[in-house]
Amino acid sequence: MPGEVKISGKEVAKHNSRESCWIIVHDKVYDVTDFLDEHPGGSKIILKYAGKDATQEYDPIHPPDAITTHLPREKHLGKVEPDTAEKIEVKITDLEKLRLERVSRRPPLSEVLNLHDFEAIAKLVMPEKAWAYYSSAADDEITNRENHAAYHRVWFRPRILVDVTKTATALGKLGHPDGELNLTRAAAKHGVIQMIPTLASCSFDELVDAAQPNQVQFLQLYVNKDREVTKRIVQHAEKRGIKGLFITVDAPQLGRREKDMRMKFEAEDPSEVKKTGSDNVDRSQGAARAISSFIDPGLNWNDMDWFKSITNMPLILKGVQRWEDALKAYDLGLAGVVLSNHGGRQLDFARSGLEVLVEVVRELGKRRGLKFPNEKFQLFVDGGVRRATDVIKAVALGATAVGIGRPFLYAFSSYGQEGVEHALQILKDEFEMNLRLVGATSIKGITRDVVDCSNLSSHVVAVPGDRLYDTNYESMQTATLKEIKAKL
Amino acid sequence: MPGEVKISGKEVAKHNSRESCWIIVHDKVYDVTDFLDEHPGGSKIILKYAGKDATQEYDPIHPPDAITTHLPREKHLGKVEPDTAEKIEVKITDLEKLRLERVSRRPPLSEVLNLHDFEAIAKLVMPEKAWAYYSSAADDEITNRENHAAYHRVWFRPRILVDVTKTATALGKLGHPDGELNLTRAAAKHGVIQMIPTLASCSFDELVDAAQPNQVQFLQLYVNKDREVTKRIVQHAEKRGIKGLFITVDAPQLGRREKDMRMKFEAEDPSEVKKTGSDNVDRSQGAARAISSFIDPGLNWNDMDWFKSITNMPLILKGVQRWEDALKAYDLGLAGVVLSNHGGRQLDFARSGLEVLVEVVRELGKRRGLKFPNEKFQLFVDGGVRRATDVIKAVALGATAVGIGRPFLYAFSSYGQEGVEHALQILKDEFEMNLRLVGATSIKGITRDVVDCSNLSSHVVAVPGDRLYDTNYESMQTATLKEIKAKL
Amino acid sequence: MPGEVKISGKEVAKHNSRESCWIIVHDKVYDVTDFLDEHPGGSKIILKYAGKDATQEYDPIHPPDAITTHLPREKHLGKVEPDTAEKIEVKITDLEKLRLERVSRRPPLSEVLNLHDFEAIAKLVMPEKAWAYYSSAADDEITNRENHAAYHRVWFRPRILVDVTKTATALGKLGHPDGELNLTRAAAKHGVIQMIPTLASCSFDELVDAAQPNQVQFLQLYVNKDREVTKRIVQHAEKRGIKGLFITVDAPQLGRREKDMRMKFEAEDPSEVKKTGSDNVDRSQGAARAISSFIDPGLNWNDMDWFKSITNMPLILKGVQRWEDALKAYDLGLAGVVLSNHGGRQLDFARSGLEVLVEVVRELGKRRGLKFPNEKFQLFVDGGVRRATDVIKAVALGATAVGIGRPFLYAFSSYGQEGVEHALQILKDEFEMNLRLVGATSIKGITRDVVDCSNLSSHVVAVPGDRLYDTNYESMQTATLKEIKAKL
Amino acid sequence: MPGEVKISGKEVAKHNSRESCWIIVHDKVYDVTDFLDEHPGGSKIILKYAGKDATQEYDPIHPPDAITTHLPREKHLGKVEPDTAEKIEVKITDLEKLRLERVSRRPPLSEVLNLHDFEAIAKLVMPEKAWAYYSSAADDEITNRENHAAYHRVWFRPRILVDVTKTATALGKLGHPDGELNLTRAAAKHGVIQMIPTLASCSFDELVDAAQPNQVQFLQLYVNKDREVTKRIVQHAEKRGIKGLFITVDAPQLGRREKDMRMKFEAEDPSEVKKTGSDNVDRSQGAARAISSFIDPGLNWNDMDWFKSITNMPLILKGVQRWEDALKAYDLGLAGVVLSNHGGRQLDFARSGLEVLVEVVRELGKRRGLKFPNEKFQLFVDGGVRRATDVIKAVALGATAVGIGRPFLYAFSSYGQEGVEHALQILKDEFEMNLRLVGATSIKGITRDVVDCSNLSSHVVAVPGDRLYDTNYESMQTATLKEIKAKL
Repeated sequence: MPGEVKISGKEVAKHNSRESCWIIVHDKVYDVTDFLDEHPGGSKIILKYAGKDATQEYDPIHPPDAITTHLPREKHLGKVEPDTAEKIEVKITDLEKLRLERVSRRPPLSEVLNLHDFEAIAKLVMPEKAWAYYSSAADDEITNRENHAAYHRVWFRPRILVDVTKTATALGKLGHPDGELNLTRAAAKHGVIQMIPTLASCSFDELVDAAQPNQVQFLQLYVNKDREVTKRIVQHAEKRGIKGLFITVDAPQLGRREKDMRMKFEAEDPSEVKKTGSDNVDRSQGAARAISSFIDPGLNWNDMDWFKSITNMPLILKGVQRWEDALKAYDLGLAGVVLSNHGGRQLDFARSGLEVLVEVVRELGKRRGLKFPNEKFQLFVDGGVRRATDVIKAVALGATAVGIGRPFLYAFSSYGQEGVEHALQILKDEFEMNLRLVGATSIKGITRDVVDCSNLSSHVVAVPGDRLYDTNYESMQTATLKEIKAKL
Repeated sequence: MPGEVKISGKEVAKHNSRESCWIIVHDKVYDVTDFLDEHPGGSKIILKYAGKDATQEYDPIHPPDAITTHLPREKHLGKVEPDTAEKIEVKITDLEKLRLERVSRRPPLSEVLNLHDFEAIAKLVMPEKAWAYYSSAADDEITNRENHAAYHRVWFRPRILVDVTKTATALGKLGHPDGELNLTRAAAKHGVIQMIPTLASCSFDELVDAAQPNQVQFLQLYVNKDREVTKRIVQHAEKRGIKGLFITVDAPQLGRREKDMRMKFEAEDPSEVKKTGSDNVDRSQGAARAISSFIDPGLNWNDMDWFKSITNMPLILKGVQRWEDALKAYDLGLAGVVLSNHGGRQLDFARSGLEVLVEVVRELGKRRGLKFPNEKFQLFVDGGVRRATDVIKAVALGATAVGIGRPFLYAFSSYGQEGVEHALQILKDEFEMNLRLVGATSIKGITRDVVDCSNLSSHVVAVPGDRLYDTNYESMQTATLKEIKAKL
Repeated sequence: MPGEVKISGKEVAKHNSRESCWIIVHDKVYDVTDFLDEHPGGSKIILKYAGKDATQEYDPIHPPDAITTHLPREKHLGKVEPDTAEKIEVKITDLEKLRLERVSRRPPLSEVLNLHDFEAIAKLVMPEKAWAYYSSAADDEITNRENHAAYHRVWFRPRILVDVTKTATALGKLGHPDGELNLTRAAAKHGVIQMIPTLASCSFDELVDAAQPNQVQFLQLYVNKDREVTKRIVQHAEKRGIKGLFITVDAPQLGRREKDMRMKFEAEDPSEVKKTGSDNVDRSQGAARAISSFIDPGLNWNDMDWFKSITNMPLILKGVQRWEDALKAYDLGLAGVVLSNHGGRQLDFARSGLEVLVEVVRELGKRRGLKFPNEKFQLFVDGGVRRATDVIKAVALGATAVGIGRPFLYAFSSYGQEGVEHALQILKDEFEMNLRLVGATSIKGITRDVVDCSNLSSHVVAVPGDRLYDTNYESMQTATLKEIKAKL
Repeated sequence: MPGEVKISGKEVAKHNSRESCWIIVHDKVYDVTDFLDEHPGGSKIILKYAGKDATQEYDPIHPPDAITTHLPREKHLGKVEPDTAEKIEVKITDLEKLRLERVSRRPPLSEVLNLHDFEAIAKLVMPEKAWAYYSSAADDEITNRENHAAYHRVWFRPRILVDVTKTATALGKLGHPDGELNLTRAAAKHGVIQMIPTLASCSFDELVDAAQPNQVQFLQLYVNKDREVTKRIVQHAEKRGIKGLFITVDAPQLGRREKDMRMKFEAEDPSEVKKTGSDNVDRSQGAARAISSFIDPGLNWNDMDWFKSITNMPLILKGVQRWEDALKAYDLGLAGVVLSNHGGRQLDFARSGLEVLVEVVRELGKRRGLKFPNEKFQLFVDGGVRRATDVIKAVALGATAVGIGRPFLYAFSSYGQEGVEHALQILKDEFEMNLRLVGATSIKGITRDVVDCSNLSSHVVAVPGDRLYDTNYESMQTATLKEIKAKL
């Protein structure tokens, strides 16, 4: 502003009291004496800068035009003469030094995998005052957290067949040098059906060669973009005696698995880790996504006829997550479906196969008069099975069988083939005993009325805890052995 | 009582046995021999003071007239001669000394922010016996805690438009010197709409100047008590190309945010902290309340016409929390509402925007035949969004879009503009993948049937834990590596 | 058995192998060679005692007649000659020594307050093998814990008026030398109604004297077995200007409060603590029970007429816990009820006053056409209130007012009168702000539609946790600052 | 392949750059220059092996034929000359050494009791990369865990009478030398009915001899395969004055109790612990299974007539878990049933007796017009009882009485007979007080309307926690005593 008055810092410094209070903001001088009691932040903080330059304190919490907007024009006194105002020495406190040291240790952006990460880092590197302002909420902050929790009570019903399940657990050699061969051999011994994965670390023929005569094996198929490749695989499998073809109607992308991605970073040479601002997020996404790029994203219902034309094996769709799609599969004459969300590795908040099972049994019963288990249209379930009681529950609700993946991987990763056999033995022991305990003498006896699943669809998320109340509540204590006690 | 008998302490001291037991209370002598076995607290405690002055023990747990009321008049023997009774030496135990030391360290009252605080302090400074008496409850203290938990199962449906949301996150510079400019620049790069807050730490024009040509920006408006100021802001915004006006029909007060308030105390010079008994609670309430005093508490439905008269921008109400008000907004011809509880920063136990969304879609469907998402009347939701799956859920339930605030603040506080871009890239990656995983090829495919929200309105608070039972229950253990174990 | 064969220990000792295995139990010799493979516990444990005396090992896990019942008569070889059999030296292991030391430190029985206590002690003093046998259950022990949890989902609806609430908090001096006077003075300053307790540590007149002119005070009455005493109290109160009489229709016993009881033990001289087997449980039950013995257990509905005959004060029943009794009170012409479970200090698994409130409002609306809040028949609620939002919830659901007890006790125990005033100021601040945030300009505006209490009656107890699964699940982690990490 | 080209390692080594990149896999040489950018795992990892042998890195994550399938035939250059290629030195990192050390410490397979165990071990012994790949899942891994949690919401309704309850707690001497005699004596003193277990560690006659005249004792019968044995026991019991015969219609197997089994291993000589691969799981299954092998698995409904023919004692079935079976028992003219799941020791996810009670009362009321408690057909409940309030709840819901087992075992294991008496005294005290507090003057007054069991059948499993969100949420804090605080 031309012709603006120049004021010396010395002059400003005289007005350093409640009676006459001038401050400098962005090199301009303001008389805020009358404003002291109106200041929303209180007069005390202004008085601290009375007669001095307050810019540094002012900037982070006011819009630049706040003071010009709120202070009458006649209180805008003019410009301060350069380098004459008292500089308030910037004290870097010890806490601030620690904070700056933390800022220097921020991980590179490429290692920030989700929005939670930003919050975790911000909590460490933001000035405390700023963190307190941003992160605080009303009262006990119940609603603040409820906002997030509410999303957890909504679950998905994914529309099409989009699966990469781990029942046929890929990449077995990561854990044990003999890889999936352990499963083949142990399955033979215990009369369990093995599903051979497309993504096995042993080749298909190795696994079929390892099978005993009459050992039943299924093939889990990931459909290749090049249909000729797929055709060759399917017909080869049929020739080798595979008894069922599980078509994994996979989505074009595998899920992001952040533990896997994070591991990648740790394994890498830290000196080569990308710095902030990289645009190539995709290269750092772990083993799972690396191996899936040849899977066909264009697969759809129309392809089912083609499959029927190239093979006589029973066709089962793997990855169904809602009754509408199970019905469609039935109407197309397929042999069954696997209700699966891929071990939770794809879409978070997909429902469990078990919950979908109840929905499918109910709707296909109502609309097509089917009863389950049903030999003409079989329902398989996988995910989360750890106990024989889990198996019994699934069967009681209508499943033909369940798929179990990770537990066997863990067994052979730790103990090889013997581990898998022991795992199968445990399940068998548990199964026989629990079969009797529910009052059945064979699998036929596991009928719908032996289970109560009235709460199966309850996706309960507790109201966020009242931390203050809980902290104050002094837990009751049991009697203890005699000893000297002191309250600190 | 005139003519009352005087008894020497020496005489009293003779009656110090179960056979003849006198005690002194408030300088009066009582014969409690016959009362010993009736004393609710047992005879032992009385016998400890037989022949002596029991006042100090008596006072804290009896009403002054308890002994006169319960003891027959003839057992009131008279007054003790001054300074003749045996004084029981008051032993201050080590525990008591520690307690008194704790009393001396009580924080000033001004730092006590809520009733929980009193309890936390009382637990530390009360005599143990008193604390045990006050805080104890029946059996496992389930009902005691249920009393509080019951309140957590009641949630609010605030009636009018009372919002200061943080979607347009104010005070950005607290975290990063470039403040909201980071958001503007990153939003441009990723084609995301930015809502400019009234309370930004950068000025409105700075943020508009930073925008790219064709970059869409909205304005979040806090209505000033001085309507001319508001008019100027609105019309300036329209001129500068702002595409939507979000009227934050704010309540006269922002919520109390205790973390923020507590931070304030810590930052202050401890020698200046107010002592107990201050009456000026309001001055110590942190940044959030400080900046909001110019917001108009008188704003109401009638002002909507005035807004329509001063601008042609679409008008959206920000802070709606129940269907009744969404309906009113629709009937008044507004362009939409933001279902928001301000990031939980105002009214605790407000419901999440997501839950309100379902209620609004249902009621406006029923009463006005509307389907959502709806271009004529748009529903926005904010609060708690952290994942692209959250966005997909909101859209499936009828939202046009969601607002995200804090996560971006954390991103630019930690990494500046690059951080915001990375955050947007993460959301985009997640969104694209999850879009396909629910079986949709575009946002249009995110229909109501891909979500199951049957539990969304469940505000579950668990019955208080049975601490004794839980303590006793010995957790099962997994197999572990071989090592020498010893039970202590 | 007369004529029984005697066998020397030396002879027995020869049969110490799988080929010929004799053992001695209770001085008798058995040939268990053929039984080795049938033994449910395996042959190994028997072979350990082959040729020796197995009594010590046998006794704790077999009924005395197990061996005679299971072993054919011809294998009962006869009696061992006294002192000839090899004694297996009893090795007391270090673990066993530690256990015996723990046994010696068992607390006296009088300090064992509940069945949980026995379990806690047993876990420490039982041999590990025995503890494992008793405490173990099937699989993940879900059902084992569910058995207990199921009880937590059943709540009481106590039939009559049986209350000793702490809203009028008794024994105030335990915490502060001025006791309830603090409450009187602070209540005066803030225009809050004080309810004077019968069990105050200050006398009634002291508290009335401390009141300001026009300060409203209520009297909480515990009805004495001697009705003349009660009459005198009531009429004195009316004369002194008390505005409402809250009749605590108390049960004959106060609840057991174990924290309080346990504190008692710690305070006592350990050398005088009663040893095991005492029959006088009652003497050690803390302050709460001590002061309540003069309360009349015979009080019943018929006494209401008598009360009406002795006073014109409005009569309110304190401690109602179900609609049936609220209805009865209304039909008897009383002025209201306090829905209260005495701060959870009496009957555990009583429901909260808030939950009962909804039931009472619904039923009295249906049966008598009443609307609440209602001046003719007022509903009060107490228990668990910590925030002004709690008050607003109660009022919205039909309460005239809420009672608050413990928080004020904690306030004056920590800070005296100033503390109480600060507590009241906090509540007032919170109340005013939240009143506006729910969209009300006065208490009249807090209507039923501002709350959603659809989950209020949900008494949810989570299914016991799957500890093995949870232990194995590796928690996800946020990004962290860069540092050298090592996996141990 | 005959005539395949041989290439020297030296030649291969020249092609070590992005411009020309050859690698060796399984002794074959491939030109992957053009494939570098297509490699799903990125080019970096390939370039690390440019000109070298990549087999070791390739094997664990690719199927053997991956490279031959994906790389055009003309890029298969030929075989490398043996021992000429550069060997990449295998560096065993410190982390890897630690891992190998952990592998050496795996517990023998026989100690692996369930599938959880494999996972726990695998987490410790797998290479980190493999563990990350296997264990990771999508986003916040909610669905991953939900898969397991869904099973927890399905509960069993076992069909027949299959029980070994611990109400009559077997093997009492494990805890105390006098064993069940303590129970007999204490029961006499307190007028409580004792149920004598078949599997007691004291003999039947010892326990009957210890009874007082007129002391009521029941017999819990495990039916022996040899019916003559059973007949002898039953008729002997009737002669000795037993008042009720509780037929435990046991399943052929007791549940697996893993804590008990695990204890077994620890007690054994570590040098004798079976190594991996054992086939004899059954020998290591703890005390509980050892003692039950003589129980008849063939027992069925038809045996009831036989029981009626050999005794006049009232017959009660112990272990009923659904209304269908209670109804059958009633129709067969039995005297009652015990609703019990054996203290959770048999079938996990059996429902609690309390929950079954409500179902039984409802259905037998509807179908046979019965009201409960009912002298003609009595319902007993056991499992989980710890408080007198638990007893009152069961009685209010229709039970004649409840069974309590473990708590008494713990009492006499810790304190002998005095402990049991004290436990009974505690229950009695609690019972009397709570009886009055629910408004009853005797057990008759405990009617259905004093309880609210509307949530009894809710088997709630919380949605898996959002660990990232929860970690970031900064807990609120209460006021604390003044002290120097530093943020690290």
